[in-house]
Amino acid sequence: MRKPVIGITMGDAAGIGPEIILKCLSQKEIYGKSKPVVLGDAKVMEEIIRICEVSGIKINRIKNLSAAFFEHGVIDVLDYDNIDMSRLKYGTVDAMCGAAAVKYTIEAGKLALSNEIQAMVSAPLNKESMRKAGYQYEGQTEIIGALTGSTNYGMFLLLGDLKILLYSTHMSLRNACDAVKEDRVFNNILLAHEGLKHYKLDNPVIAVSAINPHAGEGGLFGSEEIDEILPAILLARSKGINAVGPIPADTVFVKALKGEYDLVISMYHDHGNMAMKLLGFGHVVTLLVGVPIIRTSVGHGTAFDIAGKNRADHKNMKAAIDTAIDLGMKRLRQVVRT
Amino acid sequence: MRKPVIGITMGDAAGIGPEIILKCLSQKEIYGKSKPVVLGDAKVMEEIIRICEVSGIKINRIKNLSAAFFEHGVIDVLDYDNIDMSRLKYGTVDAMCGAAAVKYTIEAGKLALSNEIQAMVSAPLNKESMRKAGYQYEGQTEIIGALTGSTNYGMFLLLGDLKILLYSTHMSLRNACDAVKEDRVFNNILLAHEGLKHYKLDNPVIAVSAINPHAGEGGLFGSEEIDEILPAILLARSKGINAVGPIPADTVFVKALKGEYDLVISMYHDHGNMAMKLLGFGHVVTLLVGVPIIRTSVGHGTAFDIAGKNRADHKNMKAAIDTAIDLGMKRLRQVVRT
Repeated sequence: MRKPVIGITMGDAAGIGPEIILKCLSQKEIYGKSKPVVLGDAKVMEEIIRICEVSGIKINRIKNLSAAFFEHGVIDVLDYDNIDMSRLKYGTVDAMCGAAAVKYTIEAGKLALSNEIQAMVSAPLNKESMRKAGYQYEGQTEIIGALTGSTNYGMFLLLGDLKILLYSTHMSLRNACDAVKEDRVFNNILLAHEGLKHYKLDNPVIAVSAINPHAGEGGLFGSEEIDEILPAILLARSKGINAVGPIPADTVFVKALKGEYDLVISMYHDHGNMAMKLLGFGHVVTLLVGVPIIRTSVGHGTAFDIAGKNRADHKNMKAAIDTAIDLGMKRLRQVVRT
Repeated sequence: MRKPVIGITMGDAAGIGPEIILKCLSQKEIYGKSKPVVLGDAKVMEEIIRICEVSGIKINRIKNLSAAFFEHGVIDVLDYDNIDMSRLKYGTVDAMCGAAAVKYTIEAGKLALSNEIQAMVSAPLNKESMRKAGYQYEGQTEIIGALTGSTNYGMFLLLGDLKILLYSTHMSLRNACDAVKEDRVFNNILLAHEGLKHYKLDNPVIAVSAINPHAGEGGLFGSEEIDEILPAILLARSKGINAVGPIPADTVFVKALKGEYDLVISMYHDHGNMAMKLLGFGHVVTLLVGVPIIRTSVGHGTAFDIAGKNRADHKNMKAAIDTAIDLGMKRLRQVVRT
């Protein structure tokens, strides 16, 4: 069996990234189905092995992928050697770590673009450290967006089989109502359709959530469903996309959990996020879509308060890696087939 | 042990009310902790026993409570004899059934006001049938509101220990944003506080949900939290009510489930309803609050499509009766103590 190569970026060295990566790659399971490689700093990974008192795991410091072992017991690290260990202080904002994290992300993106890795997984970056290093990106998403020259991209939130695309995020609920416009809804359906291609599904069903109670009750409780959402759905359907809705917001996830839909487009921040938090707080993985590579990431941040203390939970990182392996395998099969 | 008397109204005779009541009162358990009595039509209850082929259960047709047995095996029915069996057709809108259902509700309300019953439980009424009978009420809630002369009343949604008060319901999301006003938020906190008295809790915690993402992020994503919600919370706190918030809408229920709050005030229809549906579709019980009696009801309707076919699920009715018993017992203890 050919296995996908998965590039895991170390994120901010002062955060919990190195620790959760170590805890995942200490497990044999991942090596059975993939070839994982860390993009980061070998010295940081060696120190976290000591801090977490993990035995039987060694670091293989490499400069290019051909030198990787891809064997359990050895963690291959593409080493950018950009952390000064005498300066590294866990849980502290530092431009050195911010700049290093951006570098790992860019290098992983390049390897993914050239298909040397089939998928990349991001440990969290600290935005303050990144800004201190002079980068004005919103986050890693924008770094990859810029690198790949993508313009219509976004994030799927993943929890088990449930997939959500958030139509709007950080704006007032009033503005979220104003933002519901036919062309944008249509673009989101396109984006969802594009992102679902990673899953190689047959005619996937995209549910578009309503924004008003009872999906507006025929215009009685708001007109966004009639004026904006439904026309976009009909336009998408006319182009062969299996979009359905508008589905009442209070039942759309119940139906998705039953398997009626492959993805839900959620119209505002608290709708999609509440569902995810109620169903699996701390287990949500994000998938960047609308870019020509596969990239997953954890749903949490650098957790500076517990960094370097062997207290971080790696479940979410494990889920992000598993998703990357799953999708990376599909990509590998497709590439082989072509 | 003294047991609370629980009056269960039969609702629309052509719906599933009689069937779900029968299925609940066929169980011995309820009689161990309460004295249940049905307010309805004895002939209808007898027919549903035949339809459901329940053996070992008889109907005790009574005209006042003193004639009730309150023993398992006999269902006591305060009989208003207002259904013509030759005319009754399951699953059909009929003014006769609508008028009868209103009568049961009013009579139960009167018995509750005089404390002859400690709590009432409502089987569903069909609004169309009620309107055909000439009543312009919105539903049973308004019948009881009018009967008890209450003006600031509302509904708790109950699911296990989770209690929700919906701030707004059937209006567009845009209007729900407009409806967030300090005085109304304050009134809702008062109503929640009043309703929680049924539970005899010590200084219960009322969480007021935010309406904007991240509770408005300090005004960045909307100002309702700063301008309207927080002032109402502070006013309530100054009056000794343990209100907290505004709590971000996507985490408030996660925290409530952990026991941090006794009740959540949810700002719009799909927020509270989605939480309830994700957590326990079909198990939600409603409690009328802001009225001087205890009244619970099921979360579903008359289900005309399956009425009279022995296909109705009585779990929700059982939960509504159990809640009424629990709160009725607390009331009984308090009345005895006084």
